[in-house]
Amino acid sequence: MLKDIRLVLIGFGNVGRAFASLLLQKEETLLNEFGIQARVTGIITKRHGAVINADGIDLPKALTLVEANRSLVELSTHAFNGNTLDFIKACEADVLVETTPVNPQAGTPAINHLQAGFEKGMHGITANKGPVVYAYNKLSELAKSKGLKLRFESAVMDGAPIFSLYRKTLAGAEIEGFEGILNSCTNLLIEAMEAGTPLDEAIKYAQEIGIAESDPSNDVDGWDAAIKVAALSTVLMNHPITPLDVDRTGIRGISPQDIAEAKAEGKRWKLVCRGGWRDEQFIAEVKPEKVAAGSPLYSVSGTSSFVSFALDVLPGLGILESDPSPKTTAFGLLADLIDIYQDGK
Amino acid sequence: MLKDIRLVLIGFGNVGRAFASLLLQKEETLLNEFGIQARVTGIITKRHGAVINADGIDLPKALTLVEANRSLVELSTHAFNGNTLDFIKACEADVLVETTPVNPQAGTPAINHLQAGFEKGMHGITANKGPVVYAYNKLSELAKSKGLKLRFESAVMDGAPIFSLYRKTLAGAEIEGFEGILNSCTNLLIEAMEAGTPLDEAIKYAQEIGIAESDPSNDVDGWDAAIKVAALSTVLMNHPITPLDVDRTGIRGISPQDIAEAKAEGKRWKLVCRGGWRDEQFIAEVKPEKVAAGSPLYSVSGTSSFVSFALDVLPGLGILESDPSPKTTAFGLLADLIDIYQDGK
Repeated sequence: MLKDIRLVLIGFGNVGRAFASLLLQKEETLLNEFGIQARVTGIITKRHGAVINADGIDLPKALTLVEANRSLVELSTHAFNGNTLDFIKACEADVLVETTPVNPQAGTPAINHLQAGFEKGMHGITANKGPVVYAYNKLSELAKSKGLKLRFESAVMDGAPIFSLYRKTLAGAEIEGFEGILNSCTNLLIEAMEAGTPLDEAIKYAQEIGIAESDPSNDVDGWDAAIKVAALSTVLMNHPITPLDVDRTGIRGISPQDIAEAKAEGKRWKLVCRGGWRDEQFIAEVKPEKVAAGSPLYSVSGTSSFVSFALDVLPGLGILESDPSPKTTAFGLLADLIDIYQDGK
Repeated sequence: MLKDIRLVLIGFGNVGRAFASLLLQKEETLLNEFGIQARVTGIITKRHGAVINADGIDLPKALTLVEANRSLVELSTHAFNGNTLDFIKACEADVLVETTPVNPQAGTPAINHLQAGFEKGMHGITANKGPVVYAYNKLSELAKSKGLKLRFESAVMDGAPIFSLYRKTLAGAEIEGFEGILNSCTNLLIEAMEAGTPLDEAIKYAQEIGIAESDPSNDVDGWDAAIKVAALSTVLMNHPITPLDVDRTGIRGISPQDIAEAKAEGKRWKLVCRGGWRDEQFIAEVKPEKVAAGSPLYSVSGTSSFVSFALDVLPGLGILESDPSPKTTAFGLLADLIDIYQDGK
């Protein structure tokens, strides 16, 4: 049976556009394998206006316009004036796909967007981890009360299956803890230091190529990693914590001498994330550690990331994501979309 | 709604018994989370007889008896004489769980057991890769024609989710190829050589501790790895091949000098498995390679194994299984059982 699914895209940056491209690329797969006919009925952007078209927005055209730095408004069948929450109220859709920039200390405005979507009867998919660490229970309950679903596969390790891995393939198993490298910016910065670049120069370069933000503290001081530790603890271990509960040390303290010493020992510095139970105590931490070549963490290079779970049935199950791109994050959103309608069949 | 599920266990060796123990350990989880009330109504063993009890066999007692090397027959409510196929015909059950020793060149008798189960109306779960490489299409079609399911998560990398990862979390993605270390016996043997033990002595030791079989050729000459390459190609890439189609080189040619040279270069020898498309050609191979410390293959030690998939949406998604035990394989069987009844809901 064909499912006619209307999507509204909140945010149309790198990830939002990669998702639109992937929808086009996977049109036949969605139709033939999952019976999903998806059309985008609304897009709201920060700098290129908002579009509403109940028949489905011309996505190739929308992509071309934004890439030419032009407004999307010409594609709209409705005049629209208002903020994003007004926009969500004005759209008729089945699924809200949220990819806006998020405040890492509060999870807003993603939380508000998802909430408005649920109120309007839309399932919610987000690529943001903010809503997961600051409003997971609240949003899940709201969604549930409306018979809707909240999905966020891309919130940690982009489109690599982490949350769905647990929910769908590890049914019956219990996670006792996890360990990994979850922030790729610091991983790159440490590599630059290994190559002889001082940290401040490495940060400047990372900002230039768009890997680090203008305020690098989110990465360098371990906040992004701490948010991911909180997200995994909250969702996979049913132990809700916030980034403030994570014992957090960033990479600023690693000196060129530390780097040289590690090298001499055949080791590498890594910003290691950890969560789990140890002697009845829940440990949640982010800190730089020297890892040896025999550790799976040693080979995690560039923008790759890795997490290993300790399960009651398996001492170690590791997931390695190599060289992700916005397309990878977009895949997480697509997988969430498929999941919502597979679960429902 | 409670599902009353009757299981028949074909084989009650290390894996079969670990599965029975796990069923006991996870009794409440199965009931509360999945509404599954499982009872084992038949067990057939190689050396400890066969039991039939429609009300459910006393599993703790069965485990105790076999561990004391005693016959199970006293637990049976029916006298039974015959072979395993007769046994399957005589049992009333919903799911057949197959863990017997398999002929790696033919996939028998596991194939026959599963077939008999399907004919009798039972879903089929196996820990054996033989049926997957020698009869995947035939068995899948038979199962489908009867409205039944065939599951085999434990066939490759024990209970680590590989087949379900693809089926359930990567929906919509396409696998273009894979690479990994899939045979842990050779991995251990190479490590022993790294520690200075000649290969033939290492094999003898591995036989003594039960890691290598009395005929070590299945591992040492790469057959087991080739079977796994065939299984992944057949199931995940829809490209049915047999182990004979795999370009296969074992580890016998690795000399102590090769080991020393690799070490001097900061590398390790690994028996690398590979499958996938390259220039319109399907490559399937097993061969020893020197891998550098920057490769995720480098840190795969002991009985651990690793596979990385190249996907159209993600350049590399790796799965690392560390230190598995029979309990891990048993978990794969349990996950298959849960999957069969989750899909059906």
